Amino acid sequence: PSANGNGIRSPTCSSDHVLNLEQGDPAVFESYWRKMGDRCTMVISGCQLMSYISDFTNICWFMEPELEEAVRTLHCVVGNAVVDDRYIVVGTGSTQLYQAALYALTSPGGPEPVSVVSAAPYYSSYPEETDYLCSRLYKWAGDAYEFDKNGTGPYIEVVNSPNNPDGTLREAVVKSRGDEGKLIHDLAYYWPQYTPIIRLADHDIMTFTFSKSTGHAGSRIGWAVVKDKEIARKMSKFIEMSTLGVSKDSQQRAAKIMGVLCDGYQNCKSANKSDDLFFEHNRQIMAERWERLRQVVERNQVFCLPKYPKQYCLFSGELIEPYPGFAWLEAKEGEEIDSQKVLRGSIKVQGRTGRRFGVAEKYVRISLLSNEEVFKEFLERLSTIKSMSSNGH
Amino acid sequence: PSANGNGIRSPTCSSDHVLNLEQGDPAVFESYWRKMGDRCTMVISGCQLMSYISDFTNICWFMEPELEEAVRTLHCVVGNAVVDDRYIVVGTGSTQLYQAALYALTSPGGPEPVSVVSAAPYYSSYPEETDYLCSRLYKWAGDAYEFDKNGTGPYIEVVNSPNNPDGTLREAVVKSRGDEGKLIHDLAYYWPQYTPIIRLADHDIMTFTFSKSTGHAGSRIGWAVVKDKEIARKMSKFIEMSTLGVSKDSQQRAAKIMGVLCDGYQNCKSANKSDDLFFEHNRQIMAERWERLRQVVERNQVFCLPKYPKQYCLFSGELIEPYPGFAWLEAKEGEEIDSQKVLRGSIKVQGRTGRRFGVAEKYVRISLLSNEEVFKEFLERLSTIKSMSSNGH
Repeated sequence: PSANGNGIRSPTCSSDHVLNLEQGDPAVFESYWRKMGDRCTMVISGCQLMSYISDFTNICWFMEPELEEAVRTLHCVVGNAVVDDRYIVVGTGSTQLYQAALYALTSPGGPEPVSVVSAAPYYSSYPEETDYLCSRLYKWAGDAYEFDKNGTGPYIEVVNSPNNPDGTLREAVVKSRGDEGKLIHDLAYYWPQYTPIIRLADHDIMTFTFSKSTGHAGSRIGWAVVKDKEIARKMSKFIEMSTLGVSKDSQQRAAKIMGVLCDGYQNCKSANKSDDLFFEHNRQIMAERWERLRQVVERNQVFCLPKYPKQYCLFSGELIEPYPGFAWLEAKEGEEIDSQKVLRGSIKVQGRTGRRFGVAEKYVRISLLSNEEVFKEFLERLSTIKSMSSNGH
Repeated sequence: PSANGNGIRSPTCSSDHVLNLEQGDPAVFESYWRKMGDRCTMVISGCQLMSYISDFTNICWFMEPELEEAVRTLHCVVGNAVVDDRYIVVGTGSTQLYQAALYALTSPGGPEPVSVVSAAPYYSSYPEETDYLCSRLYKWAGDAYEFDKNGTGPYIEVVNSPNNPDGTLREAVVKSRGDEGKLIHDLAYYWPQYTPIIRLADHDIMTFTFSKSTGHAGSRIGWAVVKDKEIARKMSKFIEMSTLGVSKDSQQRAAKIMGVLCDGYQNCKSANKSDDLFFEHNRQIMAERWERLRQVVERNQVFCLPKYPKQYCLFSGELIEPYPGFAWLEAKEGEEIDSQKVLRGSIKVQGRTGRRFGVAEKYVRISLLSNEEVFKEFLERLSTIKSMSSNGH
């Protein structure tokens, strides 16, 4: 069995074994990197990468120059974010960068903590990542739509686009508040395997992560693209105080893997061997998963899935559909259904309840990023559900 | 030039170049690991270590089992800390574990933040790592001796032993406060290259770091040895919320390097090739540096250095002196001298002022962990100082 309890081999997929689809562990991308063989192999001798310091002349002094260059090249290849004349700040995953941004956008001594909001359904970790240290700098204030109607005072809105859990492309929703508001754009899923790249994003603070771009979650590498020098400096200072930098081993590994990915585009695009290219290959897998999922969901008539409009993708040059990393399932039968509980009880599938995302428990989020065997087992189990109420416990 | 501005090649050690000895970057250990050649080389293919999860059955679910085993073996080889029946929690350096411990030892809803204290001179990063998020859970309250006399209410005392900056072996100083106090033992330097191992440490929370034990600061790996299961759980939860785990690449690399270090002892101690053994080899280097440093300091009569008693070392079985990683220099001439400023102005050596450690600015901390070339240049420059006042700016 693999570390998250999901089996790699068949026996652990037997019907009495719980399928853990609660986290978004990106196992789906492993097969691509396995196919790449030695090209991404990282070799580090015992005497390398020993210093705290990467480059004292950079605001982000603990960032390996190779990673900065790889990040800039990757965005240029994909065209999903402006990087020219922008600062790059590396973090221990985008989790740390979110907190670095909250720190950078607030100051001690205010009368009240700054309100942090995001439109529901919002990413389930924002509330606790905002509040666990009981900071006097900022506090979680919930749904941005509610705040737009009834909130007062300074605020930070987190715009997660495509949104986790529901896959929608988003813009800020708090309006007409003058200079009181600041924005963090969490673009973890703004990559071509999940969504059409509808524009070159150009916001004040944009965060990305190695976990969702290439699937290397275990390395804990994220980065922010930042317009303002002082904000980049404060974010770097936060990471210095929080963890005194970011693993250089992982920074170098990320640089190498991103480099191989980009080389594929720079060398091969004209040769039209698109199945060897990371985004095309994995977009194809996501498209097939969504097709299979929609068939099962339509056949048993128990859940709805969001419908996503086709949009023009600047990366592929085609009109394409989003294929989000999560299925955001809504029970059709009634407001009172606890979908997470029903799925867990009736087919032993562990998702995450809508309550965690600030909405009703008739919603449940299911990861679509597992390996193929687990995904197939999930569909088989889902197809056996005929009604939510009769399956409930 | 290297990343911290100190030269690897001679030209950058020219006398107009500032020697940065402010941080404790452990470059001194690099030559040992270079000698080890390929034995510590880490190879990671593109499809490995991709999951967030290491082992969901462990309280610290993001800790690689190989690292946990290596940490336990290392402590058994050195005999510096009890690990049987203790929980291990991995962190992104001991910086993150210090904050995880503060979180674990406090609870929301108290009338006042818990006071965090440490005996002056205390590690210069404790105040800002405690206060940067303006938490309502805890606040920095300065010198533990002062607090023992005048403080009230619940507190956490951080015991740093051997102490950074002054190299002394320490015990808790706040006494007779009943159940109000909790302790964090920061044992970053409790390794045989720096100090006699005077006892098998057995405290509630003990933190260690890869940076100071083997010198691999760039990997950002630390660990805590924890007695209480709920404290270990809360520390793990903190790290989950702070960075969603710890780089697996670095965890695996640390496990490999610690394994090679321990293999040396398990295979070779009887063979008496002690110069190949990590702690003996590097203790020898530290001993030579301290001898050379004391000669210069005694010759020019401008500074005092602490005197350390010889103590029986359980690891080596000998009476030995401490050889701390920092020189804690005290100007002899008067209370008003700003030693950091004088050293920077007169010989272009950058240390860290005593003020940052909660004491007078006649003290300055200088790293002794640089590479040999920089250390030698430091001694040459230091030997040119004949008086503090006439050199001041």
